[in-house]
Amino acid sequence: MYKKVDVGKKILSANEEYALKNSRLLADQKKLCLNMISSPGSGKTTILTRTIRELKDKIKICVIEGDIQTDLDAEKIRATKAPVVQIETKGSCHLSAAQVSGALENLPVDNLDLIFIENVGNLVCPSAFELGETGKIVVLSVAEGDDKPAKYPAIFAKSKVLLINKTDLLETVGQVDFDVERVKADARKLNKGIEIFPISAKTGAGFDSWYDWLKESVKNIRGD
Amino acid sequence: MYKKVDVGKKILSANEEYALKNSRLLADQKKLCLNMISSPGSGKTTILTRTIRELKDKIKICVIEGDIQTDLDAEKIRATKAPVVQIETKGSCHLSAAQVSGALENLPVDNLDLIFIENVGNLVCPSAFELGETGKIVVLSVAEGDDKPAKYPAIFAKSKVLLINKTDLLETVGQVDFDVERVKADARKLNKGIEIFPISAKTGAGFDSWYDWLKESVKNIRGD
Repeated sequence: MYKKVDVGKKILSANEEYALKNSRLLADQKKLCLNMISSPGSGKTTILTRTIRELKDKIKICVIEGDIQTDLDAEKIRATKAPVVQIETKGSCHLSAAQVSGALENLPVDNLDLIFIENVGNLVCPSAFELGETGKIVVLSVAEGDDKPAKYPAIFAKSKVLLINKTDLLETVGQVDFDVERVKADARKLNKGIEIFPISAKTGAGFDSWYDWLKESVKNIRGD
Repeated sequence: MYKKVDVGKKILSANEEYALKNSRLLADQKKLCLNMISSPGSGKTTILTRTIRELKDKIKICVIEGDIQTDLDAEKIRATKAPVVQIETKGSCHLSAAQVSGALENLPVDNLDLIFIENVGNLVCPSAFELGETGKIVVLSVAEGDDKPAKYPAIFAKSKVLLINKTDLLETVGQVDFDVERVKADARKLNKGIEIFPISAKTGAGFDSWYDWLKESVKNIRGD
Protein backbone atom coordinates (compact mmCIF):
# COMPACT_ATOMS: atom_id res chain seq x y z
CA MET A 1 0.00 0.00 0.00
CA TYR A 2 1.20 3.48 -0.78
CA LYS A 3 0.28 6.67 0.97
CA LYS A 4 -0.60 9.47 -1.44
CA VAL A 5 2.25 11.98 -1.52
CA ASP A 6 1.66 15.34 -3.17
CA VAL A 7 4.88 15.25 -5.14
CA GLY A 8 3.95 17.89 -7.73
CA LYS A 9 3.67 20.48 -4.97
CA LYS A 10 6.96 19.53 -3.29
CA ILE A 11 8.94 19.74 -6.54
CA LEU A 12 7.44 23.07 -7.54
CA SER A 13 8.13 24.53 -4.12
CA ALA A 14 11.79 23.51 -4.23
CA ASN A 15 12.05 25.11 -7.67
CA GLU A 16 10.26 28.21 -6.47
CA GLU A 17 12.64 28.60 -3.53
CA TYR A 18 15.60 28.70 -5.91
CA ALA A 19 13.65 30.99 -8.26
CA LEU A 20 13.11 33.40 -5.38
CA LYS A 21 16.81 33.25 -4.49
CA ASN A 22 17.79 34.02 -8.11
CA SER A 23 15.22 36.77 -8.38
CA ARG A 24 16.54 38.48 -5.20
CA LEU A 25 20.16 38.21 -6.35
CA LEU A 26 19.26 39.78 -9.71
CA ALA A 27 17.20 42.55 -8.08
CA ASP A 28 19.97 43.34 -5.57
CA GLN A 29 22.50 43.60 -8.35
CA LYS A 30 20.08 45.41 -10.71
CA LYS A 31 20.65 42.96 -13.56
CA LEU A 32 18.19 42.21 -16.35
CA CYS A 33 17.68 38.46 -16.84
CA LEU A 34 15.65 37.15 -19.79
CA ASN A 35 14.53 33.52 -20.15
CA MET A 36 14.22 32.62 -23.88
CA ILE A 37 11.76 29.84 -24.65
CA SER A 38 10.76 28.29 -27.99
CA SER A 39 10.49 25.09 -29.98
CA PRO A 40 13.72 23.50 -31.20
CA GLY A 41 15.05 25.32 -34.23
CA SER A 42 13.19 28.62 -33.94
CA GLY A 43 16.52 30.45 -34.00
CA LYS A 44 17.23 31.36 -30.34
CA THR A 45 21.00 30.91 -30.63
CA THR A 46 21.27 32.91 -33.85
CA ILE A 47 19.19 35.72 -32.33
CA LEU A 48 21.54 35.74 -29.33
CA THR A 49 24.80 35.74 -31.30
CA ARG A 50 23.59 38.63 -33.50
CA THR A 51 22.32 40.57 -30.47
CA ILE A 52 25.58 40.09 -28.52
CA ARG A 53 27.73 41.14 -31.50
CA GLU A 54 25.68 44.18 -32.44
CA LEU A 55 25.17 45.48 -28.88
CA LYS A 56 28.63 44.73 -27.53
CA ASP A 57 29.57 48.41 -27.14
CA LYS A 58 26.30 49.26 -25.38
CA ILE A 59 25.20 46.31 -23.22
CA LYS A 60 27.41 43.71 -21.53
CA ILE A 61 25.69 40.38 -22.10
CA CYS A 62 26.29 36.83 -20.85
CA VAL A 63 24.41 33.61 -21.54
CA ILE A 64 23.26 30.59 -19.55
CA GLU A 65 22.90 27.92 -22.21
CA GLY A 66 20.49 25.03 -21.58
CA ASP A 67 20.60 21.91 -23.74
CA ILE A 68 19.49 18.34 -23.30
CA GLN A 69 22.72 17.16 -24.84
CA THR A 70 25.80 18.62 -26.61
CA ASP A 71 27.33 22.09 -26.20
CA LEU A 72 26.86 23.04 -29.85
CA ASP A 73 24.97 26.21 -28.91
CA ALA A 74 27.42 27.22 -26.15
CA GLU A 75 30.25 26.99 -28.69
CA LYS A 76 28.44 29.45 -30.96
CA ILE A 77 27.99 31.85 -28.04
CA ARG A 78 31.64 31.42 -27.03
CA ALA A 79 32.66 32.55 -30.52
CA THR A 80 31.13 35.96 -29.75
CA LYS A 81 33.47 36.26 -26.69
CA ALA A 82 30.48 36.69 -24.34
CA PRO A 83 30.74 34.79 -21.04
CA VAL A 84 28.68 31.57 -21.22
CA VAL A 85 27.84 28.76 -18.82
CA GLN A 86 26.57 25.51 -20.32
CA ILE A 87 23.97 23.36 -18.55
CA GLU A 88 23.38 19.91 -20.04
CA THR A 89 20.05 18.68 -18.67
CA LYS A 90 20.74 15.04 -19.66
CA GLY A 91 17.25 14.32 -20.89
CA SER A 92 15.24 16.78 -18.81
CA CYS A 93 12.87 18.91 -20.86
CA HIS A 94 13.45 22.24 -19.09
CA LEU A 95 15.96 24.17 -17.00
CA SER A 96 15.40 24.36 -13.24
CA ALA A 97 15.93 27.36 -10.97
CA ALA A 98 18.57 25.36 -9.05
CA GLN A 99 20.59 24.88 -12.25
CA VAL A 100 20.34 28.59 -13.01
CA SER A 101 21.40 29.41 -9.44
CA GLY A 102 24.55 27.32 -9.91
CA ALA A 103 25.25 28.98 -13.25
CA LEU A 104 24.86 32.49 -11.79
CA GLU A 105 27.61 31.65 -9.29
CA ASN A 106 29.93 30.87 -12.19
CA LEU A 107 29.33 34.05 -14.16
CA PRO A 108 31.02 37.44 -13.66
CA VAL A 109 27.58 38.97 -12.95
CA ASP A 110 29.06 42.11 -11.33
CA ASN A 111 30.49 43.28 -14.64
CA LEU A 112 27.43 42.52 -16.75
CA ASP A 113 24.15 44.24 -17.65
CA LEU A 114 22.09 41.44 -19.07
CA ILE A 115 21.90 37.68 -18.57
CA PHE A 116 20.14 35.65 -21.25
CA ILE A 117 18.97 32.16 -20.33
CA GLU A 118 18.54 30.02 -23.45
CA ASN A 119 16.15 27.33 -22.27
CA VAL A 120 15.85 23.80 -23.71
CA GLY A 121 14.03 23.77 -27.07
CA ASN A 122 10.49 23.05 -25.93
CA LEU A 123 7.39 25.24 -26.24
CA VAL A 124 5.60 23.47 -23.38
CA CYS A 125 7.51 22.45 -20.23
CA PRO A 126 9.87 25.41 -19.66
CA SER A 127 6.88 27.74 -19.34
CA ALA A 128 5.87 25.97 -16.11
CA PHE A 129 9.20 26.44 -14.30
CA GLU A 130 10.04 29.91 -13.00
CA LEU A 131 13.79 30.53 -12.91
CA GLY A 132 13.75 33.85 -11.06
CA GLU A 133 14.15 35.71 -14.36
CA THR A 134 13.07 39.31 -14.93
CA GLY A 135 10.96 38.17 -17.86
CA LYS A 136 10.34 35.52 -20.50
CA ILE A 137 10.93 35.96 -24.23
CA VAL A 138 9.06 33.56 -26.52
CA VAL A 139 10.44 32.98 -30.02
CA LEU A 140 8.26 31.68 -32.85
CA SER A 141 9.67 30.99 -36.31
CA VAL A 142 7.29 31.70 -39.20
CA ALA A 143 8.04 28.17 -40.48
CA GLU A 144 6.21 26.78 -37.42
CA GLY A 145 2.84 28.14 -38.50
CA ASP A 146 0.52 30.88 -37.26
CA ASP A 147 -1.69 28.68 -35.05
CA LYS A 148 0.87 28.34 -32.25
CA PRO A 149 -0.43 30.98 -29.78
CA ALA A 150 -3.83 29.26 -29.91
CA LYS A 151 -2.37 25.76 -29.53
CA TYR A 152 0.35 26.48 -26.93
CA PRO A 153 -1.15 29.41 -25.00
CA ALA A 154 0.78 29.19 -21.69
CA ILE A 155 4.09 30.59 -22.88
CA PHE A 156 2.47 33.36 -24.94
CA ALA A 157 0.39 34.36 -21.90
CA LYS A 158 3.48 34.61 -19.68
CA SER A 159 6.05 36.33 -21.92
CA LYS A 160 7.07 39.99 -21.95
CA VAL A 161 8.17 39.78 -25.59
CA LEU A 162 7.29 37.67 -28.64
CA LEU A 163 9.99 37.55 -31.31
CA ILE A 164 8.55 36.35 -34.64
CA ASN A 165 11.69 35.05 -36.33
CA LYS A 166 12.71 33.98 -39.86
CA THR A 167 10.57 36.68 -41.49
CA ASP A 168 12.95 36.39 -44.49
CA LEU A 169 10.98 33.22 -45.36
CA LEU A 170 7.88 35.40 -45.84
CA GLU A 171 9.50 37.50 -48.54
CA THR A 172 9.23 34.95 -51.29
CA VAL A 173 5.46 35.02 -51.74
CA GLY A 174 3.88 31.68 -50.89
CA GLN A 175 7.09 30.21 -49.45
CA VAL A 176 5.59 29.96 -45.99
CA ASP A 177 1.91 30.40 -45.08
CA PHE A 178 2.02 32.56 -41.99
CA ASP A 179 -0.32 35.38 -41.09
CA VAL A 180 1.67 37.77 -38.87
CA GLU A 181 -1.48 39.73 -37.98
CA ARG A 182 -3.26 36.56 -36.81
CA VAL A 183 -0.33 35.72 -34.52
CA LYS A 184 -0.24 39.26 -33.12
CA ALA A 185 -3.98 39.23 -32.45
CA ASP A 186 -3.95 35.74 -30.87
CA ALA A 187 -0.95 36.57 -28.66
CA ARG A 188 -2.54 39.84 -27.50
CA LYS A 189 -5.79 38.02 -26.68
CA LEU A 190 -3.74 35.95 -24.20
CA ASN A 191 -1.49 38.78 -23.05
CA LYS A 192 -2.57 42.39 -23.61
CA GLY A 193 0.82 43.92 -22.83
CA ILE A 194 3.10 41.59 -24.84
CA GLU A 195 5.66 43.38 -27.03
CA ILE A 196 5.91 41.82 -30.50
CA PHE A 197 8.91 42.23 -32.82
CA PRO A 198 8.99 40.50 -36.23
CA ILE A 199 12.67 39.85 -36.99
CA SER A 200 15.03 37.87 -39.18
CA ALA A 201 18.12 36.69 -37.33
CA LYS A 202 19.54 35.80 -40.74
CA THR A 203 19.28 39.26 -42.35
CA GLY A 204 19.03 41.43 -39.23
CA ALA A 205 15.65 42.89 -40.26
CA GLY A 206 13.59 44.22 -37.36
CA PHE A 207 16.39 44.05 -34.78
CA ASP A 208 16.45 47.82 -34.12
CA SER A 209 13.14 47.76 -32.22
CA TRP A 210 14.28 44.68 -30.24
CA TYR A 211 17.52 46.49 -29.34
CA ASP A 212 15.61 49.59 -28.26
CA TRP A 213 13.47 47.44 -26.00
CA LEU A 214 16.57 45.77 -24.48
CA LYS A 215 18.33 49.11 -23.88
CA GLU A 216 15.23 50.61 -22.28
CA SER A 217 14.78 47.52 -20.07
CA VAL A 218 18.40 47.58 -18.88
CA LYS A 219 17.98 51.29 -18.09
CA ASN A 220 14.76 50.69 -16.13
CA ILE A 221 16.32 47.91 -14.04
CA ARG A 222 19.31 50.09 -13.20
CA GLY A 223 17.02 52.99 -12.33
CA ASP A 224 19.05 55.34 -14.56
CA MET B 1 10.65 14.37 7.38
CA TYR B 2 9.77 12.64 4.15
CA LYS B 3 10.53 9.10 3.16
CA LYS B 4 11.99 8.84 -0.35
CA VAL B 5 9.35 7.46 -2.71
CA ASP B 6 10.39 6.30 -6.17
CA VAL B 7 7.63 8.12 -7.95
CA GLY B 8 9.13 8.08 -11.45
CA LYS B 9 8.96 4.31 -11.48
CA LYS B 10 5.34 4.18 -10.28
CA ILE B 11 4.14 6.60 -12.94
CA LEU B 12 6.00 4.86 -15.72
CA SER B 13 4.65 1.49 -14.65
CA ALA B 14 1.04 2.67 -14.80
CA ASN B 15 1.71 4.06 -18.28
CA GLU B 16 3.44 0.85 -19.32
CA GLU B 17 0.47 -1.26 -18.21
CA TYR B 18 -1.82 0.71 -20.53
CA ALA B 19 0.83 0.61 -23.27
CA LEU B 20 0.90 -3.18 -23.00
CA LYS B 21 -2.90 -3.32 -23.17
CA ASN B 22 -2.90 -1.13 -26.32
CA SER B 23 -0.11 -3.12 -27.87
CA ARG B 24 -1.95 -6.43 -27.33
CA LEU B 25 -5.20 -5.05 -28.74
CA LEU B 26 -3.39 -3.80 -31.86
CA ALA B 27 -1.51 -7.09 -32.31
CA ASP B 28 -4.71 -9.17 -31.88
CA GLN B 29 -6.47 -7.08 -34.48
CA LYS B 30 -3.40 -6.87 -36.76
CA LYS B 31 -3.48 -3.08 -36.98
CA LEU B 32 -0.54 -0.82 -37.69
CA CYS B 33 -0.30 2.05 -35.20
CA LEU B 34 2.24 4.86 -35.71
CA ASN B 35 3.03 7.50 -33.08
CA MET B 36 4.11 10.76 -34.79
CA ILE B 37 6.42 12.96 -32.73
CA SER B 38 8.01 16.32 -33.56
CA SER B 39 8.43 19.93 -32.50
CA PRO B 40 5.44 22.23 -32.92
CA GLY B 41 5.01 23.30 -36.53
CA SER B 42 7.09 20.63 -38.28
CA GLY B 43 4.06 19.75 -40.41
CA LYS B 44 2.61 16.58 -38.82
CA THR B 45 -1.01 17.49 -39.58
CA THR B 46 -0.30 18.47 -43.19
CA ILE B 47 1.63 15.21 -43.73
CA LEU B 48 -1.35 13.30 -42.34
CA THR B 49 -4.04 15.06 -44.38
CA ARG B 50 -2.06 14.53 -47.62
CA THR B 51 -1.35 10.88 -46.73
CA ILE B 52 -5.00 10.16 -45.88
CA ARG B 53 -6.31 11.79 -49.08
CA GLU B 54 -3.78 10.17 -51.41
CA LEU B 55 -4.01 6.66 -49.90
CA LYS B 56 -7.75 6.59 -49.26
CA ASP B 57 -8.41 3.86 -51.86
CA LYS B 58 -5.57 1.66 -50.58
CA ILE B 59 -5.30 2.03 -46.79
CA LYS B 60 -8.09 2.85 -44.32
CA ILE B 61 -6.62 5.36 -41.90
CA CYS B 62 -7.85 6.95 -38.67
CA VAL B 63 -6.19 9.47 -36.36
CA ILE B 64 -5.85 10.00 -32.63
CA GLU B 65 -5.14 13.69 -32.35
CA GLY B 66 -3.27 14.98 -29.31
CA ASP B 67 -3.16 18.68 -28.51
CA ILE B 68 -2.54 20.71 -25.39
CA GLN B 69 -5.41 22.97 -26.31
CA THR B 70 -7.85 23.55 -29.23
CA ASP B 71 -9.11 21.05 -31.81
CA LEU B 72 -7.68 22.96 -34.78
CA ASP B 73 -5.75 19.90 -35.99
CA ALA B 74 -8.65 17.49 -35.48
CA GLU B 75 -10.80 19.77 -37.65
CA LYS B 76 -8.29 19.51 -40.49
CA ILE B 77 -8.28 15.71 -40.20
CA ARG B 78 -12.10 15.66 -40.08
CA ALA B 79 -12.16 17.51 -43.41
CA THR B 80 -10.51 14.44 -45.01
CA LYS B 81 -13.47 12.29 -43.78
CA ALA B 82 -11.08 10.01 -41.84
CA PRO B 83 -12.31 8.97 -38.37
CA VAL B 84 -10.61 11.08 -35.69
CA VAL B 85 -10.63 11.20 -31.91
CA GLN B 86 -9.38 14.37 -30.25
CA ILE B 87 -7.49 14.31 -26.95
CA GLU B 88 -6.92 17.69 -25.30
CA THR B 89 -4.14 17.21 -22.74
CA LYS B 90 -4.93 20.51 -20.94
CA GLY B 91 -1.33 21.51 -20.41
CA SER B 92 0.36 18.10 -20.36
CA CYS B 93 3.37 17.88 -22.66
CA HIS B 94 2.73 14.36 -24.03
CA LEU B 95 -0.04 11.81 -24.65
CA SER B 96 -0.36 8.93 -22.17
CA ALA B 97 -1.10 5.30 -22.96
CA ALA B 98 -4.31 5.57 -20.89
CA GLN B 99 -5.54 8.41 -23.11
CA VAL B 100 -4.77 6.37 -26.23
CA SER B 101 -6.55 3.35 -24.73
CA GLY B 102 -9.67 5.46 -24.25
CA ALA B 103 -9.40 6.79 -27.81
CA LEU B 104 -9.02 3.29 -29.30
CA GLU B 105 -12.35 2.35 -27.68
CA ASN B 106 -13.98 5.22 -29.57
CA LEU B 107 -12.65 4.39 -33.01
CA PRO B 108 -14.05 1.87 -35.51
CA VAL B 109 -10.74 -0.04 -35.35
CA ASP B 110 -12.26 -3.20 -36.91
CA ASN B 111 -12.73 -1.49 -40.24
CA LEU B 112 -9.35 0.24 -40.37
CA ASP B 113 -5.80 -0.66 -41.41
CA LEU B 114 -3.74 2.08 -39.84
CA ILE B 115 -4.05 4.27 -36.76
CA PHE B 116 -1.91 7.42 -36.65
CA ILE B 117 -1.34 9.03 -33.26
CA GLU B 118 -0.42 12.68 -33.67
CA ASN B 119 1.34 13.44 -30.41
CA VAL B 120 1.62 16.86 -28.73
CA GLY B 121 4.18 19.10 -30.49
CA ASN B 122 7.28 18.44 -28.40
CA LEU B 123 10.55 16.82 -29.44
CA VAL B 124 11.45 15.78 -25.88
CA CYS B 125 8.77 14.44 -23.53
CA PRO B 126 6.63 12.23 -25.83
CA SER B 127 9.68 10.07 -26.61
CA ALA B 128 9.72 8.87 -22.97
CA PHE B 129 6.11 7.61 -22.92
CA GLU B 130 5.33 4.38 -24.76
CA LEU B 131 1.75 4.29 -26.01
CA GLY B 132 1.68 0.67 -27.19
CA GLU B 133 2.24 1.81 -30.78
CA THR B 134 3.80 -0.38 -33.49
CA GLY B 135 6.43 2.28 -34.08
CA LYS B 136 7.36 5.92 -33.76
CA ILE B 137 7.73 8.38 -36.65
CA VAL B 138 9.83 11.47 -35.99
CA VAL B 139 9.26 14.53 -38.19
CA LEU B 140 11.91 17.24 -38.59
CA SER B 141 11.31 20.34 -40.69
CA VAL B 142 14.36 21.69 -42.55
CA ALA B 143 13.57 25.10 -41.01
CA GLU B 144 14.46 23.67 -37.59
CA GLY B 145 18.13 23.16 -38.47
CA ASP B 146 20.35 20.15 -39.09
CA ASP B 147 21.74 19.86 -35.53
CA LYS B 148 18.56 18.35 -34.06
CA PRO B 149 19.52 14.62 -34.03
CA ALA B 150 22.68 15.55 -32.08
CA LYS B 151 20.82 17.84 -29.67
CA TYR B 152 17.66 15.75 -29.14
CA PRO B 153 18.94 12.19 -29.63
CA ALA B 154 16.27 10.16 -27.75
CA ILE B 155 13.49 10.40 -30.32
CA PHE B 156 15.83 9.79 -33.28
CA ALA B 157 17.22 6.70 -31.52
CA LYS B 158 13.73 5.26 -30.96
CA SER B 159 11.95 5.95 -34.27
CA LYS B 160 11.32 3.58 -37.16
CA VAL B 161 11.10 6.45 -39.66
CA LEU B 162 12.45 9.99 -39.94
CA LEU B 163 10.46 12.28 -42.21
CA ILE B 164 12.52 15.34 -43.19
CA ASN B 165 9.74 17.79 -44.11
CA LYS B 166 9.49 21.16 -45.89
CA THR B 167 12.21 20.26 -48.40
CA ASP B 168 10.59 22.86 -50.70
CA LEU B 169 12.38 25.45 -48.53
CA LEU B 170 15.72 23.98 -49.69
CA GLU B 171 14.99 24.64 -53.35
CA THR B 172 15.68 28.35 -53.23
CA VAL B 173 19.42 28.24 -52.63
CA GLY B 174 20.37 29.82 -49.32
CA GLN B 175 16.78 30.09 -48.12
CA VAL B 176 17.40 27.60 -45.32
CA ASP B 177 20.79 26.28 -44.17
CA PHE B 178 20.18 22.57 -43.74
CA ASP B 179 22.52 19.73 -44.65
CA VAL B 180 20.31 16.70 -45.38
CA GLU B 181 23.34 14.38 -45.46
CA ARG B 182 24.48 15.53 -42.00
CA VAL B 183 21.02 14.77 -40.58
CA LYS B 184 20.95 11.34 -42.23
CA ALA B 185 24.42 10.49 -40.89
CA ASP B 186 23.67 11.76 -37.35
CA ALA B 187 20.33 9.92 -37.22
CA ARG B 188 21.92 6.66 -38.43
CA LYS B 189 24.69 6.98 -35.82
CA LEU B 190 21.91 6.85 -33.21
CA ASN B 191 19.76 4.31 -35.01
CA LYS B 192 21.25 2.13 -37.72
CA GLY B 193 17.94 0.87 -39.10
CA ILE B 194 16.00 4.13 -39.27
CA GLU B 195 14.23 4.77 -42.59
CA ILE B 196 14.64 8.34 -43.81
CA PHE B 197 12.34 10.03 -46.31
CA PRO B 198 12.89 13.68 -47.31
CA ILE B 199 9.44 15.06 -48.22
CA SER B 200 7.49 18.23 -48.80
CA ALA B 201 3.95 18.04 -47.45
CA LYS B 202 3.27 21.26 -49.37
CA THR B 203 4.25 20.01 -52.85
CA GLY B 204 3.98 16.23 -52.33
CA ALA B 205 7.63 15.64 -53.26
CA GLY B 206 9.07 12.41 -51.84
CA PHE B 207 5.75 10.96 -50.66
CA ASP B 208 5.89 7.89 -52.95
CA SER B 209 8.64 6.23 -50.90
CA TRP B 210 6.78 7.04 -47.65
CA TYR B 211 3.60 5.50 -49.12
CA ASP B 212 5.50 2.37 -50.22
CA TRP B 213 6.83 2.00 -46.67
CA LEU B 214 3.32 2.40 -45.22
CA LYS B 215 1.78 -0.13 -47.64
CA GLU B 216 4.56 -2.64 -46.93
CA SER B 217 4.18 -2.15 -43.16
CA VAL B 218 0.40 -2.67 -43.27
CA LYS B 219 0.97 -5.84 -45.33
CA ASN B 220 3.55 -7.17 -42.86
CA ILE B 221 1.29 -6.59 -39.85
CA ARG B 222 -1.59 -8.37 -41.56
CA GLY B 223 0.70 -11.25 -42.56
CA ASP B 224 -0.54 -11.05 -46.19
